[in-house]
Amino acid sequence: MPGSSFGTLFRITTWGESHGPALGVVIDGCPAGLPLSEQDIQPYMNRRKPGQTRYTTPRKENDTAELLSGVFEGYTTGTPISILVRNTNQQSKDYSHLASVYRPGHADYTFDAKYGRRDYRGGGRSSGRETLARVAAGAVAAKLLSSFGIDVLAYTSAIGPVSLPDSLQAESRVFKRSFVMASPLYFPDSAASERAEAYLSEQMSTQDSVGGIITCQVTGLPAGLGEPVFDKLDACLARAVLSIGAVKGVEFGSGFSAASMTGSVHNDAFYQTEEGKPAKRTNHAGGVLGGMSDGSALLLRAAIKPTPSIARPQQTIRSDGSETELSIHGRHDPVIVPRAVVVVESMVALTLADLLLQNAVARMDWLQKIYPENTNP
Amino acid sequence: MPGSSFGTLFRITTWGESHGPALGVVIDGCPAGLPLSEQDIQPYMNRRKPGQTRYTTPRKENDTAELLSGVFEGYTTGTPISILVRNTNQQSKDYSHLASVYRPGHADYTFDAKYGRRDYRGGGRSSGRETLARVAAGAVAAKLLSSFGIDVLAYTSAIGPVSLPDSLQAESRVFKRSFVMASPLYFPDSAASERAEAYLSEQMSTQDSVGGIITCQVTGLPAGLGEPVFDKLDACLARAVLSIGAVKGVEFGSGFSAASMTGSVHNDAFYQTEEGKPAKRTNHAGGVLGGMSDGSALLLRAAIKPTPSIARPQQTIRSDGSETELSIHGRHDPVIVPRAVVVVESMVALTLADLLLQNAVARMDWLQKIYPENTNP
Amino acid sequence: MPGSSFGTLFRITTWGESHGPALGVVIDGCPAGLPLSEQDIQPYMNRRKPGQTRYTTPRKENDTAELLSGVFEGYTTGTPISILVRNTNQQSKDYSHLASVYRPGHADYTFDAKYGRRDYRGGGRSSGRETLARVAAGAVAAKLLSSFGIDVLAYTSAIGPVSLPDSLQAESRVFKRSFVMASPLYFPDSAASERAEAYLSEQMSTQDSVGGIITCQVTGLPAGLGEPVFDKLDACLARAVLSIGAVKGVEFGSGFSAASMTGSVHNDAFYQTEEGKPAKRTNHAGGVLGGMSDGSALLLRAAIKPTPSIARPQQTIRSDGSETELSIHGRHDPVIVPRAVVVVESMVALTLADLLLQNAVARMDWLQKIYPENTNP
Amino acid sequence: MPGSSFGTLFRITTWGESHGPALGVVIDGCPAGLPLSEQDIQPYMNRRKPGQTRYTTPRKENDTAELLSGVFEGYTTGTPISILVRNTNQQSKDYSHLASVYRPGHADYTFDAKYGRRDYRGGGRSSGRETLARVAAGAVAAKLLSSFGIDVLAYTSAIGPVSLPDSLQAESRVFKRSFVMASPLYFPDSAASERAEAYLSEQMSTQDSVGGIITCQVTGLPAGLGEPVFDKLDACLARAVLSIGAVKGVEFGSGFSAASMTGSVHNDAFYQTEEGKPAKRTNHAGGVLGGMSDGSALLLRAAIKPTPSIARPQQTIRSDGSETELSIHGRHDPVIVPRAVVVVESMVALTLADLLLQNAVARMDWLQKIYPENTNP
Repeated sequence: MPGSSFGTLFRITTWGESHGPALGVVIDGCPAGLPLSEQDIQPYMNRRKPGQTRYTTPRKENDTAELLSGVFEGYTTGTPISILVRNTNQQSKDYSHLASVYRPGHADYTFDAKYGRRDYRGGGRSSGRETLARVAAGAVAAKLLSSFGIDVLAYTSAIGPVSLPDSLQAESRVFKRSFVMASPLYFPDSAASERAEAYLSEQMSTQDSVGGIITCQVTGLPAGLGEPVFDKLDACLARAVLSIGAVKGVEFGSGFSAASMTGSVHNDAFYQTEEGKPAKRTNHAGGVLGGMSDGSALLLRAAIKPTPSIARPQQTIRSDGSETELSIHGRHDPVIVPRAVVVVESMVALTLADLLLQNAVARMDWLQKIYPENTNP
Repeated sequence: MPGSSFGTLFRITTWGESHGPALGVVIDGCPAGLPLSEQDIQPYMNRRKPGQTRYTTPRKENDTAELLSGVFEGYTTGTPISILVRNTNQQSKDYSHLASVYRPGHADYTFDAKYGRRDYRGGGRSSGRETLARVAAGAVAAKLLSSFGIDVLAYTSAIGPVSLPDSLQAESRVFKRSFVMASPLYFPDSAASERAEAYLSEQMSTQDSVGGIITCQVTGLPAGLGEPVFDKLDACLARAVLSIGAVKGVEFGSGFSAASMTGSVHNDAFYQTEEGKPAKRTNHAGGVLGGMSDGSALLLRAAIKPTPSIARPQQTIRSDGSETELSIHGRHDPVIVPRAVVVVESMVALTLADLLLQNAVARMDWLQKIYPENTNP
Repeated sequence: MPGSSFGTLFRITTWGESHGPALGVVIDGCPAGLPLSEQDIQPYMNRRKPGQTRYTTPRKENDTAELLSGVFEGYTTGTPISILVRNTNQQSKDYSHLASVYRPGHADYTFDAKYGRRDYRGGGRSSGRETLARVAAGAVAAKLLSSFGIDVLAYTSAIGPVSLPDSLQAESRVFKRSFVMASPLYFPDSAASERAEAYLSEQMSTQDSVGGIITCQVTGLPAGLGEPVFDKLDACLARAVLSIGAVKGVEFGSGFSAASMTGSVHNDAFYQTEEGKPAKRTNHAGGVLGGMSDGSALLLRAAIKPTPSIARPQQTIRSDGSETELSIHGRHDPVIVPRAVVVVESMVALTLADLLLQNAVARMDWLQKIYPENTNP
Repeated sequence: MPGSSFGTLFRITTWGESHGPALGVVIDGCPAGLPLSEQDIQPYMNRRKPGQTRYTTPRKENDTAELLSGVFEGYTTGTPISILVRNTNQQSKDYSHLASVYRPGHADYTFDAKYGRRDYRGGGRSSGRETLARVAAGAVAAKLLSSFGIDVLAYTSAIGPVSLPDSLQAESRVFKRSFVMASPLYFPDSAASERAEAYLSEQMSTQDSVGGIITCQVTGLPAGLGEPVFDKLDACLARAVLSIGAVKGVEFGSGFSAASMTGSVHNDAFYQTEEGKPAKRTNHAGGVLGGMSDGSALLLRAAIKPTPSIARPQQTIRSDGSETELSIHGRHDPVIVPRAVVVVESMVALTLADLLLQNAVARMDWLQKIYPENTNP
């Protein structure tokens, strides 16, 4: 299937180019009866918007979400929800000289290889701007999840070589939303955040860029979400997060560290809570067992590569094969991690909303609650 | 959609439980005209089969693939290819005492939470035995890819704390198949392989288990495979590989290391080859740019957790919430990495076969080659 | 997606050729907890089996359904249900002379045009024998539906020019299963059935074949099944029924007659039943309004073309373009309508099972019944 | 999957309600390199627009298609094509009194039954206005098909009891586009057209409405389109056409008449054309054999029910079950057949564009044309 859709039952389709008239998303399959308005969506858009701190591009974009369908008298109706964002601040002239150049680290060459042509203005479809459609949809998914007590929260856990201290990275660590939002970099440790800002300033002064790591935690998940065997919870989340342009890796719980653990260390022992529910004493698994949520907090970490657009001169070639030197000036983020936090959060929310719906038809006894009049005694 | 299918155009559906009468796979969408026989499939099955070395379970299973449809006079016909493997060595009595126990690190609890019941014999559907259906299908995908010059090769790059030396892990490093196959652990460095064997023996003597890392390289890929924006090459591969039970993380090229690099280091400079094709001087990207293959070797690494079944006593609970101590005896792999190598290879091959087909309809000029008589001049 | 799968949440994949070793089906997405055994499936297979009357092919096939996965201790587990039927009575020599001939009314030419090759033995994948996999799956779907009080019943309403009398074809007419099963042709009117048998004998004596019409009624459907706007109930059913090889048309309720009615005649007036439910005084709509079930009986009619295999000489060509005269001898049904009745019933049941599951996630208040602990007060 | 998407590789998602701010469609999977502009789309929109003749609603709607993405420098880029149409002439007050009434023949009750709520203004999502999004997308599909010499043409073949004469309804009859477009009712026979106009006037004078039949012919199709066994060409087209609200039946070639033919009459004899291609002497099959196009003209007929909105008083109930009498005044079409002609044409074009792409990956030798450099010698 063409690649601009995501999800099976809670399904989104995004469209739009960086410098076209607009971008948007259609959400199909949102259940009827969810309270929803533009006020639920705009705060997510604002978290992604550029120009919030000195560490992001100074471009000004309003990124106002217009809700065009699927909501009536304040509630979703079960029909497709269309959200549109007009582009208001494109400066196409900034990009015209890049029409035939293959920027290192960008998708210029691969788009040409695939399609034989591309909208070269600001990256076109491969621009990070495409993610605003994901965030608009992610806000709806997050609203749906929150009405089932499920909370999705992403934050920065590393900027370049500056990481959260190990004590704050334990698999069992859960942060409060307000604490994360208090940091301009969404870096929930003030000392680390300050060191990160210093490191950023240093790299910016040498016209270089920086990567980092985003962690996402999910609390309140019922056990059993995820569809064996190919649509495992972690498999679906990995696809979701790696579909974000800059992500180069993803891991769950102990992740790559698990590779050097022994089974007796990595296995999480089960016990019963006072409320009579199964729980785990540790969470090396990161909240997923056998590809399904296990009732513990879900924990994933995503590696973000450094922004490829840098002002330093780089060697590259043109589409005709000739060599050239390139310096990318303009309004680029020296680090996209802080703006990508809400994108990761959105992709995780979209995945979970979909799996929450898919899981609802797993059992006869659940279906009998939906169709009580039709159930034979 | 239910979770036992994978792929869009080259699409597989697996079925079967560890201790049922059989397991199998249906491949739908394999193009007509591919030479295929059971002799193409069995070697892949044999690489996965237990009992090959002292580091795998001593269970004996023939795992003979029976080809039931979709092939006529030695060629695929375009209709579904059904492959069946009879279970011949189930010992259900081994497992009956586990019917109501939640084994740590296993899917017992999550299957119960989702479905309200489970086939508890040998893990049922969540058994690693399910992967033989993937390998049977992976052999067909690999045959298809090889006829387009694409080679998928996985190998062990770490067993517990024993890793390939850094010099052999560079993103530009490509191994030969024969060299990998020469090692019993598929560990392409004899010194590392010996240290790994020593480490394994040590852990086995303490009734513990071990994890590791599997690397997969793909050569010969044309540029442009992968579907923006959600079905990016790396996103699809991540889902594919994380759908294997024991995988806890996946990364591409520099992967998590990219998070602490600067842009000027991570960006791969383009140049033109003597044959006049664009190429990259380095391969930090791991062969994927903007979610599409970039013509360089594709490189992914998957973290494998230690086998959860260990003979050491573990604390856990029963389904009624009561506490119990558990020692899992029986025929379990102390490390599944070597047997999982061909599973990773298969999932990568399946993903690429599907994306190869999807890519074929990306452009009008390609379609015109397919329908020349219908093309207006 | 490749064409051998059907359904979104209750999803089947069929495989197998007429003269290969076996045919079968994998059902993925059947909810856990449905009581199921081979005894539920075999009666459906038997209704389709040849050799039941003198009006069907005298071929003997056991068509024994083997249940290979997805059921444990008498209940479905939520994992894929694989059903296999071995071919035991293929006589490939009957067909070898047809390898290069394009039989009129058959798919020989179109298979060659699409795939460049085909399994020519007995029609290969295009054989009516393929429908036994649908019937095996249909039996499971019917079992699921029956546990929600939904009954799917198909019957013969015309054989050639012999039709049920108009009084028995009213849109509001509902037959009893036992009454339909009492007729060897599943033709629920003894006078019409006798006339049909006479007509059939007459055509058989001239080595010709006959078509007919199958009607399918569904009772007990809750209102609201069907997904606006493209997966309307009638749209999905039409695809399902027209995917059966011999079907050339489908209509709902008044169907083609509606085209010459006026609105004041065709509109069905609503009233309220004594139980307080909305109902319709007439049923010209055939139980579907706006693409969703309306609580009335669902009524569809399918036109079946005459069997294309006839012993009378026919003009045709070979694959090399040369002309030839063809007489198809062998064991062919002079009319496939009676054997197709259970195939129509199965395709309708499969469609409804899928839409029943899809509908379950349409509303927030229904999801809240599934996840009560996660629902905020 | 949610019901607002259609197609697998050439895939559309429609959104919008009759009285919301806008409606639209996203087309994903259109190959790159197709010349496209708003000028290709608007003529299709205009054919559907109301107010063209005295037999359609006098509502005035501009229905201007705005192309928002996926096209750059006059060519499609392979990325999603978003088309938006603003609603400019909604008169919501016309509908407010219908908020709690179940109109006979409409989807009011079934929407309530499914979703528990609905946008009652002008039918909301179930309004015929939804089809403008299909027509916008259909124009793109038709442009794609025309570049492969495939022409899709629908026309009126009956208005109420007034039909085209039998001689013009033969399965081998193919009309010219200009001839069809010359009739205000798209009824390609001036005598029949005049009688239809007289019949329409008569029914309008008694405040009643009328149905009819639309025929669609497709010429230039290569043989082999359609995917065995569930995505047969006719099965896919039937779903497509029955997804249009007012359609109650569909048939191919001889259709329901085939049910009373004998095999010797219905079978179409093959011969070889002077150009050396297989062809059929008759076309009872309507251009489809075994679910694939057979190189003859494709012929389908769709039954359209009479417009349910009539001014005559009708008995019905409110959502609270109370009885009421209803007269629907306002601007309604006395017959929707002429406006639905382009909708049928669009749905057929969308189906064929999708199957054209799907067919392109059916064979190894075709793939080798796409990837020549990767093909082993």
